[in-house]
Amino acid sequence: MVDALLPEVDAGRHAARSSIGERFRVTAHAFADGHDEVAVALLYRRHGEESWQHAPMVLLGNDEWEASFAPDAIGRWEYTTVAWVDRYATWLVDLRKRVDAGWDVRGELQEGADLVSAAAAAAHGVDHDALRPAATWLRDESLDVPRRLGVAEDPAVLAAMRRARGRAEETWYARILPLWVDRARARFGSWYEMFPRSETPDPARSATFREAARRLPDIAAMGFDVLYLPPVHPIGTTARKGRNNTLEAGPHDVGSPWAIGSEEGGHTAVHPALGTIDDFDWFVREAGTHGLEVALDLAFQCSPDHPWVREHPQWFRHRPDGTIRYAENPPKRYQDIYPLNFHTADWEALWRELLHVTLFWVEHGVHVFRVDNPHTKPFRFWEWLIDRIHREHPDVIFLSEAFTRPKRMAALAKLGFAQSYSYFTWRNAKHEIVDYFTELTQPPLRDFLRPNLFVNTPDILHEYLQTGGRPAFLARLALAATLGPSWGMYSGYELLERTPVAPGSEEYLDSEKFQVRPRDWHAPDRITEQVTQWNHLRRAHAALQYNHDLWFLPIDNDQVVAYVKAAPGGAEGGEPGHLLTTVSLDPTSPQGGSVGLPLAALGLPSDAPFVVHELLSDRRYLWRGEWNWVALEPSQPAQIFAFERPQGAPEPEGILP
Amino acid sequence: MVDALLPEVDAGRHAARSSIGERFRVTAHAFADGHDEVAVALLYRRHGEESWQHAPMVLLGNDEWEASFAPDAIGRWEYTTVAWVDRYATWLVDLRKRVDAGWDVRGELQEGADLVSAAAAAAHGVDHDALRPAATWLRDESLDVPRRLGVAEDPAVLAAMRRARGRAEETWYARILPLWVDRARARFGSWYEMFPRSETPDPARSATFREAARRLPDIAAMGFDVLYLPPVHPIGTTARKGRNNTLEAGPHDVGSPWAIGSEEGGHTAVHPALGTIDDFDWFVREAGTHGLEVALDLAFQCSPDHPWVREHPQWFRHRPDGTIRYAENPPKRYQDIYPLNFHTADWEALWRELLHVTLFWVEHGVHVFRVDNPHTKPFRFWEWLIDRIHREHPDVIFLSEAFTRPKRMAALAKLGFAQSYSYFTWRNAKHEIVDYFTELTQPPLRDFLRPNLFVNTPDILHEYLQTGGRPAFLARLALAATLGPSWGMYSGYELLERTPVAPGSEEYLDSEKFQVRPRDWHAPDRITEQVTQWNHLRRAHAALQYNHDLWFLPIDNDQVVAYVKAAPGGAEGGEPGHLLTTVSLDPTSPQGGSVGLPLAALGLPSDAPFVVHELLSDRRYLWRGEWNWVALEPSQPAQIFAFERPQGAPEPEGILP
Repeated sequence: MVDALLPEVDAGRHAARSSIGERFRVTAHAFADGHDEVAVALLYRRHGEESWQHAPMVLLGNDEWEASFAPDAIGRWEYTTVAWVDRYATWLVDLRKRVDAGWDVRGELQEGADLVSAAAAAAHGVDHDALRPAATWLRDESLDVPRRLGVAEDPAVLAAMRRARGRAEETWYARILPLWVDRARARFGSWYEMFPRSETPDPARSATFREAARRLPDIAAMGFDVLYLPPVHPIGTTARKGRNNTLEAGPHDVGSPWAIGSEEGGHTAVHPALGTIDDFDWFVREAGTHGLEVALDLAFQCSPDHPWVREHPQWFRHRPDGTIRYAENPPKRYQDIYPLNFHTADWEALWRELLHVTLFWVEHGVHVFRVDNPHTKPFRFWEWLIDRIHREHPDVIFLSEAFTRPKRMAALAKLGFAQSYSYFTWRNAKHEIVDYFTELTQPPLRDFLRPNLFVNTPDILHEYLQTGGRPAFLARLALAATLGPSWGMYSGYELLERTPVAPGSEEYLDSEKFQVRPRDWHAPDRITEQVTQWNHLRRAHAALQYNHDLWFLPIDNDQVVAYVKAAPGGAEGGEPGHLLTTVSLDPTSPQGGSVGLPLAALGLPSDAPFVVHELLSDRRYLWRGEWNWVALEPSQPAQIFAFERPQGAPEPEGILP
Repeated sequence: MVDALLPEVDAGRHAARSSIGERFRVTAHAFADGHDEVAVALLYRRHGEESWQHAPMVLLGNDEWEASFAPDAIGRWEYTTVAWVDRYATWLVDLRKRVDAGWDVRGELQEGADLVSAAAAAAHGVDHDALRPAATWLRDESLDVPRRLGVAEDPAVLAAMRRARGRAEETWYARILPLWVDRARARFGSWYEMFPRSETPDPARSATFREAARRLPDIAAMGFDVLYLPPVHPIGTTARKGRNNTLEAGPHDVGSPWAIGSEEGGHTAVHPALGTIDDFDWFVREAGTHGLEVALDLAFQCSPDHPWVREHPQWFRHRPDGTIRYAENPPKRYQDIYPLNFHTADWEALWRELLHVTLFWVEHGVHVFRVDNPHTKPFRFWEWLIDRIHREHPDVIFLSEAFTRPKRMAALAKLGFAQSYSYFTWRNAKHEIVDYFTELTQPPLRDFLRPNLFVNTPDILHEYLQTGGRPAFLARLALAATLGPSWGMYSGYELLERTPVAPGSEEYLDSEKFQVRPRDWHAPDRITEQVTQWNHLRRAHAALQYNHDLWFLPIDNDQVVAYVKAAPGGAEGGEPGHLLTTVSLDPTSPQGGSVGLPLAALGLPSDAPFVVHELLSDRRYLWRGEWNWVALEPSQPAQIFAFERPQGAPEPEGILP
C-alpha cells in the first residue's frame, strides 16, 4: 500500500508550490503485507509530458519514505509515488537470515538463480551481461555458499535486479498530484513600495515617471528587488477624497490612486500627470537596468468617472432607484469607488475585459502584480484569471492583499496567488511571533502559501511602531528580513514615519494615498543603512531565501526571540549554513538571555568552544556548550550569527529537531 | 468553498467508523468570498438510499463548522457537506449594519421584499403563508423601520427563507465519504479468552464443550461480554509440538490448536475431543443464555495433516525439491504449520474456500472473529473477505491480531477490521501510556481504528506482570478497563499466573497452547472480585464505553497517571458524567500526588468545595479547587472518581481543553 503522500493540498484539488532553485521534498507511507521488502520511487514530470522521471525514495523508518527533486522549469508539474515488492531484495533478506542461522540454503540459492535467470532473459546491455553469469554462479553447487552470497550481493547484480522489476507488480498512489513551480522571485525577494507622484520637485503637483526614476538608484542601492507602484491610472474627480481622507477635496488635491478612471481613461491608461504609456515603459526598463522589477497594483474597482461606468453600466450594482451603488461598509461610505459586480449577467464580458487589462500590463513588462482586496471578488474569478495568464506567461507573480480571515487568505493562495500579505504586522509579542511563524513554516500552510512580510503599508502603521520609535522599526526590520524569504517595506519606513492620523488609528497622518508627499531622504534619523545591510545579508545567505526550516530556540526572556534558519539541502543563492537571529522586542531597555542551541543538529562540538560570527557588527565570539548569552540594546535590537565550524567538519544539512 | 471535511480517511478511499449508540461528529471549513453569509449542512444517508438527510452545521468560529448525527442502522453510510450563500441572511446582516449606522434603509427594505416575494412564489403551505404577508409588510412604506425589521427577523420568516434556498447556489464538498457503522459491541465490550479443553475433570484428557460450559456462569458473573475461543478444530499430529513448545510430543500431548487439521477434518470441523458440531452449537447457545457472545479464532494456516494438503497441494508453497514449505522465521522453524500461499495460481479457489469457512461459522452463530496474524496475508484478501461477509452479515465483527508495525496495523483497520489488538501490553511507563493513548484517541487513528486492550494473551506475559505481581495485575486491569471501551483478558490473569517459560521470555511456562491446564478458580490470591467490579463499573458508566474524549491530567509524580474520560453528548449505555481515574504504576511503594483538574470543563465550582465519589471503595471525599491530593497503595493501585456537582448544575458536555 502507498498512502499519505505529502505535500498534498485538498486531495490534489490544488497544486503544491515550489520554485526554481528549490528541491521539492516528498514523503509517503509505503509497505506490503507479509514479509515482502518494498521499493518506492517518486515519479515526476512536467504537465503534458508522456514519461515520468524517477527518484528512488529512501526509507526514513516506520514505513515512511522520502525523496526530492529540483524542478528545472517554471509552470505546472505533477508527481506521484509508486511502490513495488522487490522480490530479489525479499529473497536476499531471507537468505541472509538463513545463512546467519546456519541453515542449509542450497534450495534458496536455486530459487535466487531462477529469479536472476528470468531477469537476465528480459534485460539488455550491461544488465544482461551482469545477470547471465550471476545466475550461473548462483546455481553452481561447486562454489561455496559465501562465494555465491557474494555474487547475490554484488552491486552490479543488485542494480540490474532493481532495474529489472516488472511493471505488473507496481502499486501506484491513488492520485497524481499537481505542483506549480514559480520562478525564484516568487520565493525570495525584497519589496519596496513607492508612490511615484511623490518624487516631485514641486509639492504642488505630481511627479512624472521621468522624475520618479531619479530615485531608482537609491532604492536599488538599498538592495531591493521589486519596486511596487500603487495604481498609475487616471484618478476620478467625482467625490474625490481630500487630504487625510476628508470628504471634500480641494482644487489641488490629487485623490486616491485606487479611485481608478476618469475622462482620460481607465485601467489601461496612465495618469497624464505621470506621463504617457511610453514613459511608463521607459520607467520599467530604467528600473530593470538597476536590477529592480516593477510590480503594479491590480485594483478591480472604478471611480464614478471610469469609462466603464458609461460604457458598461451593467457591470455595476444598482439600487432600486437605478443609481449605481458605491462601496459601503456601514458606517463607512466610499462614494469615490464603484465596486464591480462580478456576478452581473454580463459577467463573461467583464471577466474578459479584466483579463485584457492584466495582459495589457504584462505586455508592458509588468510580470508582478499586487492584487488589491482579492477576497472581495469571486474565488472562481481569480482561479480563472491566473490560469489564463499563466498559460502564456507562467512567470507572472500575483501577490494577494487579502487581509481577511485565515481560511480565505489560504484559499486565495491555493487558487493561484504566488504570495500573500500576512498577519505579520499584527504579530508583535514573542508568543504571537513564535506561534504564527511556526504555523507559516509547517505543513499544510507552507505547502502552498508564501507570506510576504511587509513591515508597513500605506494603510498599516502598527501601534508598536508608533510608540516604539527607532528601536521598534529596527526590530521589525530584522524580523521581516529574517523570518521569511520575501519581505516588503512602504517608503517612509526608512525615515521612521510614525504619526497616525488620530490616536488609536493605524492610518498615517497626511497619508500619501490622498496627497503628494515629497520627503527628505537624507533626514538624520534614517535607517537606510540598516535596511541596506539586511538586504545584502539576505542576498549573501541561502538560509534567508527559503521558507522551510525555521526553529525557534529556547531563551529565558519573553522580550527576546531567537531562531535558526537553514537552507534546504542543495539550495542555491548564496552561502550555505545555518544562521541564528536574536531580536529584542523591547524598544526601551537592554535585554539579554541564554540561548539554547541544538549543537548536534548545527554540527557544533559539545565539548569544545566554537566561533560565532555576528554579521551586522562583523564581530566574532567564542561560545561553548549548549547555552550561550546574548545581549541586545534598543539601539541595536537584533543580531545575526553564522557558525564557524572546526576545519574539515561537514556542513550539516536541513532538519533540526 | 467547502474543504477539510473531517473525518476523512485517505480522501475517502476508506470508511470512517461509527457505531450504534454513538453520534458521528463531522467538521468542515466553509466560507464564501466577498461579504456573503454562508449556511452549511451535513448530508448523510444509508448507502443505496436516494435522498439525503440534513443536519444544519453550526459555526464554531474561524470558518469551521460542526454537526453530528446518530446512525440508526448498521452497515454502510455516506456523508458529505453542502454550503450555500444565504442571500437573505446576507441581506439581513447588511440591513442591520445600516440601521445601526442610522442610514436610510428604504431601498434595502424593497430589495428584501423582492427576495421574500420570490421565495413566497415558490413556497407551499406554512412557508407560503409566512412569506406572502411578510413581503407585503416589508414593502409597506407606511410601517416604520423597526416594525419592518421585526418582520424581516420574525422566526417563521427566517425559517421559511432558510428552507426556500435554491439548489443552484449550492457548493458541495468534493467527495462523498464512506462511513461504516458497526453494532455497539464493536465499540464496547469486555472479552475473556479461554481454552475450553482445559475445563477438564481429568488432567489426562481434553474437556468437552459440555464440560467447558460449566464455567460459563462464572465468566458471565465477572461481567464479560465476549468469550473468545482459540481454534476448536482437529489438531495435526505430524511434527506436533510437545509441552512448552518442545519438538517431540509425547503420546498424551494435545498439540497446539493453531496447528489446524487432521484426518478428522479441517477448518469447518470440530475437534472430536471437544465434541460434535452440535455440541458446539449448543455451547454457543448456552453461552448466549448467560449473556456471553462466542468469538472464534480465524487462523488461516494448516497442519501437515490438514485435508487441504492432500486435496489442494497447490494452495501451499513448495521448495525446489517439491516438498511443501513449513513456516519459518530464521532462526525459528514451525514444522507443525504449513502457511497457505495466497498468491497461488489457484488463488480464486483458495479465497472462496476461506470465505466458505468463515460463512460456515457465521451460520453456526459466530458473529465475532479474532483473526490470527492477518498482516501475514494479503491486505486485498481481507478487504475482499470482510466485504463479502458484510454484504449478508453486516453485524459480524473482526478483531485483528496484527502485532506488527504501526502503519500495517492501521491499514488492516482501514480495510475492514472493526477492532485491533494494540501495543497496550508493551506500554507500561507513564510517558508511554500518555503518548500512546493520546495517539489512539485523536484523529486520524480514532477515526477508523478501535483498540482492544488485552492485558495478556497466551503469547504475551509482560515482564511488568512477571515482576510486579498482584499490584501490577491490578494496575494493568484498571488501565485496560478505563483507557478503552474494549478490553480483554486471557484466563489465568485472575489467578495472577506469571511464570515465564524462561527468564526474559514473554511466553508462559506450561503454556496452555501446548497442554491441557485445569485450574483452581478459587485460589486464595485471585483477583476475580476486582475484575468483576471493573466490568460492572464499565457497564454502569457511559464514559467508559467510548473511545473519544480522553484527557490526561497533570500530576507531579511519574509513577501515577491521572485521566478523565467523558461520554460524547447524547451517549447511551449508562450514567452520563465524567470519570477521573488515577493509577499507580509502582507495584512496590505507596505513591501520591496532586491532580490538576480542569474545573470549568468539568462543571465544578472554583470557589466552593465539591464531592468526589470513589467508586471502587464507595467512599466520598470533599475536594476544593484545581489541585487535590490522591494517595495510592500497592494493594489498591487504582481509584476512579465520579464528580457530584451541586444540585441543579447542568451536566457538562464533551470537549475538555
